[in-house]
This record gives sequence, C-alpha cells and structure tokens, in this order.
Amino acid sequence: MSQPLWSKESTKSKSRLSEDIMLFMSGRDVILDQQLLAFDIQASKAHAEGLARIGVLSEQESMIINQSLDQLLKDFEKGQFILDERFEDGHSAIEWYLTDKLGELGKKIHTGRSRNDQVSVATRLFCCESLKQLNQLCLDVSFTCLKLAKQHEKDVLPGYTHLQRAVVSSWGLWFASFAEAFCDNAKAAQQVLELIGSNPLGSAAGYGVNLKLDRDYTTKTLGFNRLQINPMYVQNSRGKVELQVLGCFKNALLDLRRMAWDLSLFSTGEYNFIEIGNDFSTGSSIMPNKHNPDAVELMRAEYAKLVGCYAELESLLSLPSGYQRDLQNTKEPLLKGVSSSLQCLQLVPHLLVGMTINHKQCEQAIEASMFATDKAVELVIEDGMAFRDAYRHIKDNYQELEERQAEISIEQRTSPGSCGNLLLDRIEKRLKELLD
Amino acid sequence: MSQPLWSKESTKSKSRLSEDIMLFMSGRDVILDQQLLAFDIQASKAHAEGLARIGVLSEQESMIINQSLDQLLKDFEKGQFILDERFEDGHSAIEWYLTDKLGELGKKIHTGRSRNDQVSVATRLFCCESLKQLNQLCLDVSFTCLKLAKQHEKDVLPGYTHLQRAVVSSWGLWFASFAEAFCDNAKAAQQVLELIGSNPLGSAAGYGVNLKLDRDYTTKTLGFNRLQINPMYVQNSRGKVELQVLGCFKNALLDLRRMAWDLSLFSTGEYNFIEIGNDFSTGSSIMPNKHNPDAVELMRAEYAKLVGCYAELESLLSLPSGYQRDLQNTKEPLLKGVSSSLQCLQLVPHLLVGMTINHKQCEQAIEASMFATDKAVELVIEDGMAFRDAYRHIKDNYQELEERQAEISIEQRTSPGSCGNLLLDRIEKRLKELLD
Amino acid sequence: MSQPLWSKESTKSKSRLSEDIMLFMSGRDVILDQQLLAFDIQASKAHAEGLARIGVLSEQESMIINQSLDQLLKDFEKGQFILDERFEDGHSAIEWYLTDKLGELGKKIHTGRSRNDQVSVATRLFCCESLKQLNQLCLDVSFTCLKLAKQHEKDVLPGYTHLQRAVVSSWGLWFASFAEAFCDNAKAAQQVLELIGSNPLGSAAGYGVNLKLDRDYTTKTLGFNRLQINPMYVQNSRGKVELQVLGCFKNALLDLRRMAWDLSLFSTGEYNFIEIGNDFSTGSSIMPNKHNPDAVELMRAEYAKLVGCYAELESLLSLPSGYQRDLQNTKEPLLKGVSSSLQCLQLVPHLLVGMTINHKQCEQAIEASMFATDKAVELVIEDGMAFRDAYRHIKDNYQELEERQAEISIEQRTSPGSCGNLLLDRIEKRLKELLD
Amino acid sequence: MSQPLWSKESTKSKSRLSEDIMLFMSGRDVILDQQLLAFDIQASKAHAEGLARIGVLSEQESMIINQSLDQLLKDFEKGQFILDERFEDGHSAIEWYLTDKLGELGKKIHTGRSRNDQVSVATRLFCCESLKQLNQLCLDVSFTCLKLAKQHEKDVLPGYTHLQRAVVSSWGLWFASFAEAFCDNAKAAQQVLELIGSNPLGSAAGYGVNLKLDRDYTTKTLGFNRLQINPMYVQNSRGKVELQVLGCFKNALLDLRRMAWDLSLFSTGEYNFIEIGNDFSTGSSIMPNKHNPDAVELMRAEYAKLVGCYAELESLLSLPSGYQRDLQNTKEPLLKGVSSSLQCLQLVPHLLVGMTINHKQCEQAIEASMFATDKAVELVIEDGMAFRDAYRHIKDNYQELEERQAEISIEQRTSPGSCGNLLLDRIEKRLKELLD
Repeated sequence: MSQPLWSKESTKSKSRLSEDIMLFMSGRDVILDQQLLAFDIQASKAHAEGLARIGVLSEQESMIINQSLDQLLKDFEKGQFILDERFEDGHSAIEWYLTDKLGELGKKIHTGRSRNDQVSVATRLFCCESLKQLNQLCLDVSFTCLKLAKQHEKDVLPGYTHLQRAVVSSWGLWFASFAEAFCDNAKAAQQVLELIGSNPLGSAAGYGVNLKLDRDYTTKTLGFNRLQINPMYVQNSRGKVELQVLGCFKNALLDLRRMAWDLSLFSTGEYNFIEIGNDFSTGSSIMPNKHNPDAVELMRAEYAKLVGCYAELESLLSLPSGYQRDLQNTKEPLLKGVSSSLQCLQLVPHLLVGMTINHKQCEQAIEASMFATDKAVELVIEDGMAFRDAYRHIKDNYQELEERQAEISIEQRTSPGSCGNLLLDRIEKRLKELLD
Repeated sequence: MSQPLWSKESTKSKSRLSEDIMLFMSGRDVILDQQLLAFDIQASKAHAEGLARIGVLSEQESMIINQSLDQLLKDFEKGQFILDERFEDGHSAIEWYLTDKLGELGKKIHTGRSRNDQVSVATRLFCCESLKQLNQLCLDVSFTCLKLAKQHEKDVLPGYTHLQRAVVSSWGLWFASFAEAFCDNAKAAQQVLELIGSNPLGSAAGYGVNLKLDRDYTTKTLGFNRLQINPMYVQNSRGKVELQVLGCFKNALLDLRRMAWDLSLFSTGEYNFIEIGNDFSTGSSIMPNKHNPDAVELMRAEYAKLVGCYAELESLLSLPSGYQRDLQNTKEPLLKGVSSSLQCLQLVPHLLVGMTINHKQCEQAIEASMFATDKAVELVIEDGMAFRDAYRHIKDNYQELEERQAEISIEQRTSPGSCGNLLLDRIEKRLKELLD
Repeated sequence: MSQPLWSKESTKSKSRLSEDIMLFMSGRDVILDQQLLAFDIQASKAHAEGLARIGVLSEQESMIINQSLDQLLKDFEKGQFILDERFEDGHSAIEWYLTDKLGELGKKIHTGRSRNDQVSVATRLFCCESLKQLNQLCLDVSFTCLKLAKQHEKDVLPGYTHLQRAVVSSWGLWFASFAEAFCDNAKAAQQVLELIGSNPLGSAAGYGVNLKLDRDYTTKTLGFNRLQINPMYVQNSRGKVELQVLGCFKNALLDLRRMAWDLSLFSTGEYNFIEIGNDFSTGSSIMPNKHNPDAVELMRAEYAKLVGCYAELESLLSLPSGYQRDLQNTKEPLLKGVSSSLQCLQLVPHLLVGMTINHKQCEQAIEASMFATDKAVELVIEDGMAFRDAYRHIKDNYQELEERQAEISIEQRTSPGSCGNLLLDRIEKRLKELLD
Repeated sequence: MSQPLWSKESTKSKSRLSEDIMLFMSGRDVILDQQLLAFDIQASKAHAEGLARIGVLSEQESMIINQSLDQLLKDFEKGQFILDERFEDGHSAIEWYLTDKLGELGKKIHTGRSRNDQVSVATRLFCCESLKQLNQLCLDVSFTCLKLAKQHEKDVLPGYTHLQRAVVSSWGLWFASFAEAFCDNAKAAQQVLELIGSNPLGSAAGYGVNLKLDRDYTTKTLGFNRLQINPMYVQNSRGKVELQVLGCFKNALLDLRRMAWDLSLFSTGEYNFIEIGNDFSTGSSIMPNKHNPDAVELMRAEYAKLVGCYAELESLLSLPSGYQRDLQNTKEPLLKGVSSSLQCLQLVPHLLVGMTINHKQCEQAIEASMFATDKAVELVIEDGMAFRDAYRHIKDNYQELEERQAEISIEQRTSPGSCGNLLLDRIEKRLKELLD
C-alpha cells in the first residue's frame, strides 16, 4: 500500500507542525481584536478603578494605569501601536503594554479578572455601540422614506400581488411602508440594547473570584443599565448575546431586501419605473449597452451575510455550560455581520433620494381591471349587494370597468393607512418618539 | 431513446393531474388552520363590528353574524364542526359557515377584507398568544431555578471550563444562572410582544380598500397595542413577524440546550452527579442494563426544530413587496416551532424538581488544584504579589495547595453573583418585576 | 411573590404529567413510521433469513416468520393493520404482530438486532428508494426540457444579466439550460445512491453482537452495493446519510427555484412572455381581475422546505459518538423533505408542457442595443480591432446598431452551446447514458 | 423634528459618498482574488490558445500573450506583482498587465469572453483543486485511523449509548469507525469532483458569443472531464457548484466534529481516557492548574464555519436566471470555507498519533452490567430462550453477571465489523481502491 501524503509530511520538522497548530488555534483572532481594542481599554480602565475602590490597587496606582491605558488608545489610533500577530490577542497586548510601560504595576491589572472577562465586556460594549448605530441608521432610513412619501403622496404606482398587477397604488404608500417598517426596526434595536445592556465584567472565568469586586461601580461607569449578576450566566451568554444582536440586524436587512427586490424590478426594461442614480450603477465588461443597478443587487445580497454569520454562531453553541474554546469563533461572525450591515445601511437614504421616478411609465401601467376590487366594494355600498355577489358581477362584466376608470382614483382608497389616507402624521409621531 | 417515467404517466387522466396539483397547492393548509380558527373567528367578529360602526352592516346584522361566529367556535371546540379537506382553508370555512347559516347576510362578512387580511390578523393573534405563553413558561422555569438555587446554595459542584475541572463552584450558582437567564428570556418575550402587537386587520390585499374602516376600533377590541398603519407594510410583515417570534423562542431553547447538555453529562456513569427522575428516562430494547435520560436528550434536541423552522421561513422571504403565494408556507414552520417549544418548556420545572443530586459524588470531584486561582488571588491580597507572579508561583508550587484545601471554601468567593454572594434577592426582584 | 403558572399546575395528577412526558418523548414517531414500515418489514425478513443461515432460527422458523411478515405488509396496505398511537413505534409494532400471531417464535426475531438496527436499515432503504425516484424525476424534467428546446430552438427570448436586457437569446437556450442542469441533478442522485447504498443491518446498538451474523447475505438480499462494515460508524451515520440525501435533493430544487423565478417574471403583465396553464393558477378572494401563477410560486418556495429540514438535521448532530435520543428527531425532516420535494418535482414536466409562449411579445422585447456585444465582436473579426477598442467604439456609436439589427440573428451566436449551436445531441447523449 | 444623523451627513462631499459606494460594491473582492489569480492566469492561457485555434489570434500572438501570462504568475508568486485595491479585481488586473506589457495585443485577450467567464472558470479550477486536496486529506485521516485500529485492536473502551455506558467496546472499533467514515468522505470528494469537473469557459456573459470558440480544446487543456455545454447553465451554476463543494466538505467535518466531541469527553477529569499532546493544548490566563484541549475544541467548532458559509451561499441564490451582482458574494464563503477546513483537516492525523491512551482507566470503566446484552444473547443460543425472555431474565438476575464477567471478552463479539471481527482488511482494501 503506497504511503499517503500525510506520511510523507510526517517527516516535517516538529517545529513546523507546532507552527501550523498555533496558526490554526489563533486564527484571525488578533486581527479581529483591532475592532475591539478600544472597548477592552475602556473596560480595563473601569476594572482598575474598581480595584482601587476595594483597596487592591491604591488610588495612585489606578490613576497611573489609566493614564497608560489612555496613552495606549492614542498610540493605537495614531498607528503608533500596531496590534498584529506579535500578540496572541488584544487582551494580552494590553497586559504586555502596561507591563512594558509600568513594570510590576502593570502585572497587577489582571487581578480578579480573566481573559474571558475581557472578551465578554469588550464584546458587550461593541454590541451596545452597534445597536446604537443600527438604531440611528434605521431612523435615518425611516426619516428619508417619510419625506419621500409626503413628496410622492399622490403619484400612482401599480400595486402587485403574485407579481401581477392587482390594484392601483401609489409611491406614497410604497415609501410609507418602509418608513413604518424602519420605525419598527429602530424600536427592535432599542429593545435589544435594553435586553443585553448588562455588565458582564467581574465574572472571571465564569465562577467569580474571592474578592469583593465593586461590580455596581463598573456597571455605572461603563454605562450599562444593570448588572449581569451570575458569572456562569455571563459565560453562557457568549454567543447568545451575539445571536440577539445579529437577529436584530436581520430586521432591517430583511426589509431592505424586499425594497431592493422592488427597485431591481422597477429598474428593468420591462417595468422601467425608475432610474438608479449613476453612483449606484455600473457598466459591463463585455456588453457596451449595459447600465446595471449593481448597488441595489448588493443591498439585496447583504441579508445573506447575516444569515451566514448567524448560522455559524448558532451552530457553535451546542455545548455544556462554561467556557469552551469553540466560543472563540463567535467573534468573527459578529464583527463581520455588524460592520457589513452598517456599511450597507448608511447608503440607503442616498440611494432613495438619488433615484429618478418615471411617472409617465407608472401611469401607463395602470389598467382598467385594477379598479375591479374598488368597483365591487362600490356595488356593496351603493347598491347593497353582498360582497361575494358583487365580486361575481364584476368578474362577469369587465367592460363596465373601462368606462368607470376615469371616475375612481387612489384618493377614494380611504381605509386608514391606504393611498387616500396614508396617516403619515402618525408615522412621524412614532418616529419622533423613537428619536427621543 | 426509451421513454422516461413521466411520458408513461402523461397518459394519466387530466383530472388525476388536476387533483395532484390541487394537493400540491393546498398542502396541509386546512389542517394547520385548526390551530388558527379560533383567532380567525375572534378577528371576524371584530371586523363585523367594525363594519357596523361605519354603516356597512346594521347593528342587527353585525350581532347576528357574531352570534353565528360564537356558535361556530363552540361547534368547532366540541368537534361538531370539523375543519378538514372539504374546505380550502379555515378562512373560506368561516365564510361558508356563515353563508350556510345566514344566507345573503353571511356573504357580507368579506366586505372590505381579503383572505390576506384574515391570515395576517389570525396569525398575529396567535403570535401574541404564543409569546404570552412563552413569557409565562420562562417565568416558571426561572421561579423553579431560583427556589432550587436557594435550596442548594451551599452544595458544591465542580466548575468547568473546556470541560476540564477548573474551580470549585456550587449548585446554587448553577441554578441561579438559569434563573437569571430565563428572566432575560421572559423579558425578550415581553419586548417582542410589544413590537409585533400591532393590528394588521383592515389592510385588505396590501393596498387598503375604498371604505373608511374603523381600524382604531378593531385595534382596541382585539387587544393590540397600536395600529399597524401601512397596508403594504402589513403584507411585507408576513414572515418578518414569524421570524421575530421564533427568534424570541430561540432564546429560551438555547439556554435549555446548555442546561440539557449539563444534565446529560451529569447523569453519565463518569460524572454521576445526578439521577434523572424515572418519568423522564427509559430503558433499551436490546440492553437490559440501561436507564437512559431520554427526555433530557430530547430537550437538547428541541432547539434544532426552531433552527429548521426559522431557516425555512427565512429562506422563503427573498421576494419583492406584496403578497406572493410562497408566503403560504410561512404557516407551518411558525405553528410547528411554537407548539413544539411550548410543549417542551412546560416540562422543564418538573424535570428539575424531580431529579436527585448525588452530593457525595460532587464533593469527591473537588480536587486540590481547583483552588489554585483562589490561592493566587490570596497571594495578591495578603502578600502583595502581582497577579502574574502569584500565578507563576502557584503553578510551580502545587504541593502547597494540598495543605490549603481545607481552609478555602466557596463562601470566600464573594465577588457579586459568585458562590459566596449569589445575590438571589436581586434575581428575585427582577423576576417579580417581570411578573407584573 | 405570587405563584407562577407552573406552581398551580404542579397539583396536576402525577399520571397527567407522565402522559405529557410520554407525549413529548414519542412525538409523531409512530405516525412517521407509516412511511417506513414496508422497509422495516423487508429488512426484518432479511434478518430472519440471516438468523436461519447461522442456525439461530431453523429454516422452518424463518419461513413462518417471513410469511407472517408478508401478511403484515398486506394487512397494512389494505388498512387492516393500523399503525397508530397504540404502538410506541413501527419497530415494536412488528415485534408485537409477530408475537401476537406466532407466540414464542415471534419473540425470537429481535435476536441479534436492536431498534437502532431497525431504524438504520429501514431509513437507509427509504433513502435509496427516494434517490431512485429523484433520479427518475430529474431525467423526466431533462427529457421534457430537451424536447421543448428542440421545438423552440429558433424562438427568440431576451437574455438578461442584472435583470437588464443584455443580449438576444432563445427559448431553445433557456430550455436546454435546464435539460443539462437536470442531467447533472440525476447524476448527483446516482452518485449519492452509490455512496450511501451500504448495509447497516447487523450493527445492533452500535457495537455489534456476540453472534456471527451473515451480514454479507443480508447485504445482497436487500440490494445494497456493499456492507457498511463498522457498527459504530453505522450509528454515527445517523443524520449524516440523511443530510447527504437532502443535500442531493437540493440540487434539483435549487434549479427549479431559478426556473420558477423566471416563469414568475415571464408571466407578469410587464414581461407577458408566457401564460401558465389554468390548472397551475388560481383567482383571488378579493380581486375579481386576478389570474395568479400560484403553482409556480409554490415551486419556487419548495426549496425553503429543504433548507429547513436540512438545517434541523444539521443542528441535531453536534454530538459524541454512539446513539443519543436526539437522533430520533432526524426522522421527521428526512421524510418531510423527501416527500414534499418528490410531490413537487413530478409536476414540473406538466407545467412546462402546459404553458403557452407569447412569441410576439418576446420578439418585441428585443432592442437594437442587445446586439452591441455581437457587433463589437464583428468589428474584432472583420476589422481587426482589439476588443476593448471595439467595445468603446460601439458604446460611442449606438445609432449604427439600429441599422445592423436586421442583419444579425441568434443563429450567428455559434460558440458551442449558444443559441446558434445548442449541441442538443450532446445533452441527449448524456441523458441516454444516465438512463442506462 | 430634529434632524437625524443622515441629514447632517448629506452635506458630505459628493466624492466622499461615491467612495463609500465604491467600497461597498467592491467589498474585499480584489483581496479574495489573490487566491484565484493563478487559476485565472491558467484559464487565460487556454483562452488565448483557443483564440489562436480559430484564427482570432495568430499563433505568434497567442504565444506572446502566454509568455506574458507566465511572467505575471512568476511576478505574483515572488511578490513583484501585488494584487491590491489599485485594481477592481483580479480579472481586470490581468487585462491591465497584458496591455501594460504588450500594448494593443494585450487588449485582444478579452475577445469572446466576459468577466463572468473568467470568474466561472477560475472558481471551477479552484473547486476542483480543493476537492483533490480534500480527497487526499480524507485518505490521510483514514490511513492513520486504520493504522491505529490495528495497533489498538484489542484495547478495551466502554461503548456508549445516550452517553451511558452500554456495552464493552474497543479502541480498535473506535478507530476503525473513523477509518471507514473517511473512506466514504474521500469517495464523496471524488464523486463531486467528477460532477462539477466540467468546463465553463466560453460561455461569455451567459449567452455565448458569435465566434466559433474551440471549447473542446480548452476543456482538454484545462483538465476538465467534459464540456459544460449550455452557457446559461454555466451562469446558473454560480453558487450551485460552490454549494456542492462546501456540502462535500461537510461530510468530513461532520465526522470530525463527532471525533472531537469524543476526544473532548475522553480528556476530561471524569473520563480520563486520553491525554492530548502538548502541542494541541494550552493553559489558562487566570487558572494556573489548567491544561486545556483547545485544538480539539476548535476542530469541533470548525463545522460551524462550513454551516455559515453554506448558509450564506444558499441565501444568495433565490434569483432568476442569468448573472446578478448578488453572485459576487459567492466568492468569500467558498474561499473561507475551503481554506479553513483544509487547514484544520491536515492536523487531524498528527493529533491522533500524538495522543496518549490511558488503558488502565479504560479498563476500570468496564462494569459487569455492560455484559448484560452479550449474556442475553448467550442464553438465546445456549439455552434456546427467546430473546425477549432472555432480556427479562438478565434484567431480573443482575448478580449472575458479576460472576460471568471474567468469561466474556470483546473477542466473542464476532458479528462482522464488531470488536472481535473488525474486518480491517476490507477497510484497507477500500482505501487502496480509493487511492488509485
């Protein structure tokens, strides 16, 4: 039996193997930590102050450590401290920096906390900040849609079901639907922020320490709304919190996917209802005639990244209680999902404001048959027919519709929220409440 | 070329094919509607009252319709009205029943609403009810865990990281971690209930109707907290709301999966920390010696159902705005995920109360090395060593630990939330607030 | 603190609780087994014969058992033996039946096998049968598409990229693309059938038995292509095989989703390229004017079921080696995914044959600009321009295209596989090979 | 109403916005292309040769282009040509390089192909290469496991079901199970390689070109096993092929997850069956006493990455036929999933060879009750009892087992594949066939 590849490789030096293993174990951890370092520094400062409050550090020691941490942040932001593969991760980099600058004193920062503590609190601060940004961007999208709904309140647009032209609708209704949707998405962000905004710092490796840490102080200092009490629950929250955050982002990206689908169809030659702004479209490498709505398609595709990140996270979490190294891999999907979504969402208002609506084409797409339902309702009201009978009457008497078209308009669609009664003031009121 | 199977089948009668297509299109819809019928009836009553308020029905007509709907519900609950394949779905069954009982009047119920309306509002009411039950069951689990945490506050249990024995912990800490987790899970249910608790009724096929429906009245009557204003947003919420609900259920089942993992390990011959109650375990068909914790394993497996239901829903939703028939398939994963999860969660308190803890075995599992961290912290506090130095000192002087074991106990682990300071009163306070 | 729901419930009788637990543990298992019973009977017969070959049963005993098993199958198919909640599952039902009919002899069938054995072999036989049906249906779809490609070889259709009209294409190209795709999908089914077609029977509970079972005999009798040797691997294949099967089904349903998307767009008012047969479409409950392609939308939606079933399975499988009760839940997603997909796929040829193509509309959708690429290539060939220069020239001289339109046709698109050179004979050759 | 964030930002310069959009649209595309560039160059050479065969390039021109492409590859590998953000992607970088070096001639390379062509063929070559590596690594793992199975053929190990000690098993059985599993995984890789190993080059933007490209020549030159005929099917394969590849990788990683779960448990203090090699484990930042099997946990976690990558891909693909920009996002999950899995798998043989088995502990874990099943079978064979009666007899007479323990050994477990009859020669025979 011939030897397989591995056997040949087994002659490779022991040290080369060790290197491969190290590489496998560290992954991209330290690079990912570049996005978390500022939060880790912030939490380290709170930890140092907390140690001072219970006498483990003197006030003086705590102050010196915090000045050094401030300096580290400045150095990092200016590119004078590089977080790279020299370090195992961002957490040990902080301890290295302090020890390098402060000697013995620097070694004291790790008293009463573990790396798990650092990961948990830095990640939680990152999650809170991400939700705040998500909230803001959702409000931006809602605000823009509301403005455009007012502007296009009376501009007609076919209303579709099954992708078939169904009834007459309006651009006002279309924009208002997203204005309301993104209010809900902002609300969801605010709720999850409240839910996860508890302080994990002080949980050590998941079982606490034999020190009476002042966790209420660090809770307040770091801006959390309450203490996450149980240290084992802190550990078991790894992944759970991340799922809640990405799940919350999904709300916004799911609505964006439907919006992008609409815009993708509306900008085809067949519909021809809109033109996407030049900034948001590109040409083709082989077809000189093309003008493609690439950005819209990529916005539609964005949801899939969240699906992937969320599924990866979820698949990691079939574990007993307590920290397992598997959980290290929760970091990348969280960071990727959040940053990619935020980058995408901030472009949406610009896309909407920059597109051009081809009103003539929208009007031409309205066919007499699209008034059939309205007409059936009229027969109910005016002639006292039962709806089912009116429905059948209309179905059998299509030619009547042709004559009536001129008489019926979207303004008669007066059920609350509909084309003739958009209730934009209510959406605006909700938006204002969410802004506070 | 020989004919493939299909060609032979193409001789099958036209009517047989039509039947197959009908079967494919209806799916299990009408069977699933058995779980939604009561909600559809409730909403139909509100719709009839609403029609009376705007003069489309007389007060008398509305009353008669509602009495008939009440009768339908009674008949259905008593098994005297069977919802089965005779009907396309529950929605048309209601209209059929009313027309059958009330003649012309029955046909009027569909004025100003569509089947989409009915599906949306019945599903939303089902979602709200499901979240209320989820909330209640989470509070039950939390309450039970809190009680058991008090009872076992000082009972030792090894604390694990990487599945390795790490530090001494306690059953009090273990139970308290789930008490707090299920407070969060209840809170999440309450939040999502607030988020989705808006009234979709009155949106027709997604574009409203030319009738000034009194949607504020139906909002109030049906117990929703606000109007879902925009009818197109109502349609675009199909699937989004369902995802939010299942996403919320995931919180509880995710924590349950970790709990079940712990119990699964704890009940092995190797750990031998607990015995599962007889009700929750079974024997083997081939091995006479086995006593297996089947219910615990099935609780661990339950999360996977939510994963499947959620993924199915999510995969359906890459669509343009407006109703598409694809959305019919949102019903089954919602109903399956919710009912299976609730059935599982209600058993958890019974499982926990019924299991027996083998305290002696837990105590024997505590090894001297598990005090290493506590000892290192002591050296920091008492001897003023830097933590990193204390850490190295302990690592090099293991034999010292043997002597110290007797002196150190979980009660010295006093960081807030830890074994010696569980803060059960705070968890209880939170639980009470959530109960209100 | 007021008592939560559970506490009130704890007064419920012990027996009521036991019932709830039993219900939770059995799930829908016995109902699902209705689809597996025939396979379990087939495997039980092979097992009995195998026991006779090693002298554990006499030839006579084996024959009697097998006659009784044949009778059971007949009774079951005629509805004279009902598999329902009276039995824990189908496996114990078989043993019960044999013992009921044959007394002592019936109890012997379970010698040297476990319920795990029964589940594994019945499921494997079901998987093999499912893949054979999948293979056949893929070949049917391919055959139909090939026939339609020939028929519509020269019928134009716009070719899209980014949903924008890009170049002229043909219905021949469109149908041929699916003809080739479903050849690949059939090939994949044949491959997976080969991969998983190994015999798991004789693995007992995952560790074999102290009997020299004649597993090679049962392998041959049951039509497997080889023995699955290692009994622990048999257990660890639970879920893995199911994933491979559903993964294989995904190939076909993924292509069907794209096909359904095309048909959904082609049947809109905007495109208006086709009309779906009446059998495959429906009306609306509120809009008398609608004619909706419901079956096409449900075909598009079908892939999502596989996503859900696959994800549920996958999420169950984060487990150590050996049987765990979690694996019971692999049954439902397998059965659901397979049966739903097969039901859907068999309708596809009928849908395609029954739809009407609106050729005039397709021709009108061809614009001069869609010849831009062809023209650029012409400039390269005829005038010796570099492609990039030709590309720019065309972009700057659009009016030229107008004049050229008449001269260029899809027949000049002669690159192998393209509109003027579809190579249908090659696809047909491949299809024939796959049919053998 | 106060202005939201976006409004403030709208004052940002137009060019800043364009930059953000460009960044969003390009994503990490050009960086990812570093892994595909060599394949793109290889395919570009074949394309140039193909153009020469049909007279679009002279032999001389084709030769010059190919020399230049060879030089580009060398420059790239030596780091003298850097593929970075200066270029939109790797495809345009190649064209830029040729034009830079060869002037007019360089512009000719893009005749008759599109960027879609380049992406498709480079990705396909990457997929084929990845499957070959996967095949090799699976064979390596299988080979190692087979060797270890021989070595430990008679070493006992408890056999578990439900994580409960069930019957006596052996390390031989354990290793052999993975030896056979990874044979199947290699086989699957070979099958998918055959399935997807078709040539997409020459499909242009999905509709071919008006040039009689010699696609059979490029098929042969690039080592594909057949032509992917239909150009629209080529486009529709984007994502489908990637799913097939990642789906195939899942087989191996799924088995690895179960293996890692076993090793994770076996290395706990409770089991204590093995010690992981030092290279594969690490210490703790806070607990001086810990020796953690980190690499094993990360191997268990690896499957989750595939889940994420696969789910992201799948979620992108709900699209009509033809290229859409969404498909650009198929690249990252493919590259990430493949490279991470290969990095992980190559370490597995080293891990297995380097771990130490604690045989004494394994033997001590064998309890008398674990012979109950064997004993029941003995009663059937020797005393002619029906199995169900023997089963009950054993259950009622446990003390008998104590006495019999010495007499029964794993060697009596002789059913084919079991501890006493591992059939390693059959597994070896299969492995050899797969190696050919």
